[in-house]
Amino acid sequence: MEEIRDPAPNRRDEDRRDDPFIDTAALAAELAEEHPADIAEALDEEEPEVASAVLASLSREQQVEVLDQSDFDLSSDLIEALPVEEAVRLVSAMSADRAADLFRWMEEPARSHLFARLPPETQAELNRLLSWPEHTAGSLMTTEFVTVPSTWTVGETLRHIRETERTRETVYAIYVLDPVTHKLEQAVSLRRLITGESGQPILSVAPKHDPITCAPLMDREDVARLISKYDLLAVPVVDEHEHVLGIVTVDDMIDAIIEEGTEDAQKFGGMEALDEPYMEMGFVAMLKKRAGWLSILFLGEMLTANAMQHFEDELERAIVLTLFIPLIMSSGGNSGSQATSLIIRALALGEIKLKDWWRVALRELPSGLVLGSILAVLGVTRITVWQIAGFHDYGEHWVLVAATVGTALIAIVTFGSMTGSMLPFVLRRLGFDPASASAPFVATFVDVTGLVIYFTVALIILRGTLL
Amino acid sequence: MEEIRDPAPNRRDEDRRDDPFIDTAALAAELAEEHPADIAEALDEEEPEVASAVLASLSREQQVEVLDQSDFDLSSDLIEALPVEEAVRLVSAMSADRAADLFRWMEEPARSHLFARLPPETQAELNRLLSWPEHTAGSLMTTEFVTVPSTWTVGETLRHIRETERTRETVYAIYVLDPVTHKLEQAVSLRRLITGESGQPILSVAPKHDPITCAPLMDREDVARLISKYDLLAVPVVDEHEHVLGIVTVDDMIDAIIEEGTEDAQKFGGMEALDEPYMEMGFVAMLKKRAGWLSILFLGEMLTANAMQHFEDELERAIVLTLFIPLIMSSGGNSGSQATSLIIRALALGEIKLKDWWRVALRELPSGLVLGSILAVLGVTRITVWQIAGFHDYGEHWVLVAATVGTALIAIVTFGSMTGSMLPFVLRRLGFDPASASAPFVATFVDVTGLVIYFTVALIILRGTLL
Repeated sequence: MEEIRDPAPNRRDEDRRDDPFIDTAALAAELAEEHPADIAEALDEEEPEVASAVLASLSREQQVEVLDQSDFDLSSDLIEALPVEEAVRLVSAMSADRAADLFRWMEEPARSHLFARLPPETQAELNRLLSWPEHTAGSLMTTEFVTVPSTWTVGETLRHIRETERTRETVYAIYVLDPVTHKLEQAVSLRRLITGESGQPILSVAPKHDPITCAPLMDREDVARLISKYDLLAVPVVDEHEHVLGIVTVDDMIDAIIEEGTEDAQKFGGMEALDEPYMEMGFVAMLKKRAGWLSILFLGEMLTANAMQHFEDELERAIVLTLFIPLIMSSGGNSGSQATSLIIRALALGEIKLKDWWRVALRELPSGLVLGSILAVLGVTRITVWQIAGFHDYGEHWVLVAATVGTALIAIVTFGSMTGSMLPFVLRRLGFDPASASAPFVATFVDVTGLVIYFTVALIILRGTLL
Repeated sequence: MEEIRDPAPNRRDEDRRDDPFIDTAALAAELAEEHPADIAEALDEEEPEVASAVLASLSREQQVEVLDQSDFDLSSDLIEALPVEEAVRLVSAMSADRAADLFRWMEEPARSHLFARLPPETQAELNRLLSWPEHTAGSLMTTEFVTVPSTWTVGETLRHIRETERTRETVYAIYVLDPVTHKLEQAVSLRRLITGESGQPILSVAPKHDPITCAPLMDREDVARLISKYDLLAVPVVDEHEHVLGIVTVDDMIDAIIEEGTEDAQKFGGMEALDEPYMEMGFVAMLKKRAGWLSILFLGEMLTANAMQHFEDELERAIVLTLFIPLIMSSGGNSGSQATSLIIRALALGEIKLKDWWRVALRELPSGLVLGSILAVLGVTRITVWQIAGFHDYGEHWVLVAATVGTALIAIVTFGSMTGSMLPFVLRRLGFDPASASAPFVATFVDVTGLVIYFTVALIILRGTLL
């Protein structure tokens, strides 16, 4: 990704920081005209006490809008710092999914203390939301949505929205329920509703196809795919009785897709997902996430020492072979890394399925042979030029050495491409996340086998001469 | 990413494929009740002739809806195959951004032939859209949006939308313009509009803050950040006179974010971005994308052979040193890969800025030292255990060899972490995409320097004994 420049950089803060006399009232007045997302961003850069004072001086509506911002990091700190009655008022007014997030982040005992003071129905709603596992539709959904019975008209529905939704912007779509069973019958977009005739039944503006829904345990990536495929603004989460439990909105989905991309990139880089911005994470916590994988990979690479020890006699007899070990190993690793990143992504996007493994294998085998041959030509040329030009003397059997390097390159790059492309399928089949087949992991595996391949080729080609 | 299961797998096609008598009319009837996205998906799996026949039997409205699907791969083929008058009718009815995509994909001479037959105003509109560079807001925007003068009331606006937007769902927000200058004054969401009093001026339901806008040349990643930050359904694209040129909608943005993630993953895996799904791409085209980088990395790795040649005398005297070369090299590569993937992602998300490089360096230096020390302990333990248990004899100076390996590991892991974390900053500073500092590139660089570090440490520690 290229840089995402901050589209509306908040110069104020920097200017103001030069001024030792921070006037929170002035800052509040200045921020009052801003978008809630900008207010949240500005407050996040302040000390909690300043942010708290500024927030307090905003209108009640703005306070709720600011707290509803999903990337407002200070929100739980601010709520903890408020008098309990005030916190209860704000939390009750917040959208349910944000309030649930707040309770996920708050620390004990403030968390339990505040929760106990909430109205019973809010408690029950939050408990329902908090009960779903992380990264599922249930944990992402909000419970603010508009339902109407299918017996209503367009006009009645519009009136209902006007009356109940005046204070908050939560209308993504209108969910039309069976008047008796309360099962979801249809989803009507606001855009369709607005173009309908007032006296017509609400179902007259509904689409012909069945509503697109998801189950509460659906993974957020599957929800993202639904929203992306059907260009939805929100997808209703329904239980086994087709009752609507909540809705997952497109803006939450965008945040989830970006977060997922970060986790993948980090796993791919050979570490656990950090879950926190790089600079905000504690030093020890970050080391833990990195040291684990690094040590595992190191233990795996120790097998290269075993392989080398096994061939120590050959190494002593033909020291010239050692010169190309790093070159050959890294080529296998690079080709494996290419193949694995291609396949992981294609699997993640659903471009290929588990059952396509043999089609991929049939494609990677010739790819590996061709790519290996290209590198072999480069490698043999390099040895020939150095030898003939006199840059280095690879000994009387330099032609055989060059043949060994070339043959080994073809074999190792092919092996790397095959391993790199098949490992994601194996991991998926075993129920693991293919992204864990991170490039370094493939590289480590290919390094060890690459050495064995190299020395085996050498034993065949150089037997009777060098070996 | 974990698997994104297809949420609504289309079983029909597979069942039907067993039947040699394909009845396109039956398929059309079956699909007529489906969501346009599902119809497009089903057609994409058919031969163009079958798809064309099925499309022809759908209603005009559905034809346009299906062609408006952004991931309908066959769309340009189908349009090319249609009689020109029919194609003109459909293209004129499609949303402008999709029609522009169509002309991006169509081949000559069909492209020019069709374009010449379009009404002049459609031609002009398409030419405007097609003139913006790829991946900019201008190239992603559509020109269907609703504007009203700021002198109108809520009721007038609603009536206007009802009259003009009956046939198509293009209302994401209403853009309120100055009645004289036509400059953008405010953006009003449909949700706010619907809750307003009919007789009140439209500006009474507008938010207090200025409208969030973008320039036509803004990169799609910046647009994505705007939409994500402000939870927008669409962002208006305005020129330097604050005139609205078009809007970029959230569903197009989701597609763009996913595509961007794929490109990053592929660059990170050490190749050019493929731009096409793995299985759909031609074999030769794919090899070209992979062979280039693989060859460049190979040429880079050739420097390892130079380094090894430089130390050939030492190698001959202390063959035991070669045993640990793969282990040490890969550890440097892995630590570099971790650091670079962390920093690339943090830069892409705007968590850190270019000016933060020294803060990152101050964090990576101790990180590298600690991580290197952990690996050093593992490595020294391995050598000690093998020596004492008699698994392998590292010679009389095995303690010094162990010390060499341990010291080199600390130095190389620290060097890898520093290089991996600083390279993205350097690339960004030079105007390149930091994702090009792909892990294999860092690994190659660290491999070469790692060898030099290893032998330098060996020369210091082993001088007078082995060397």
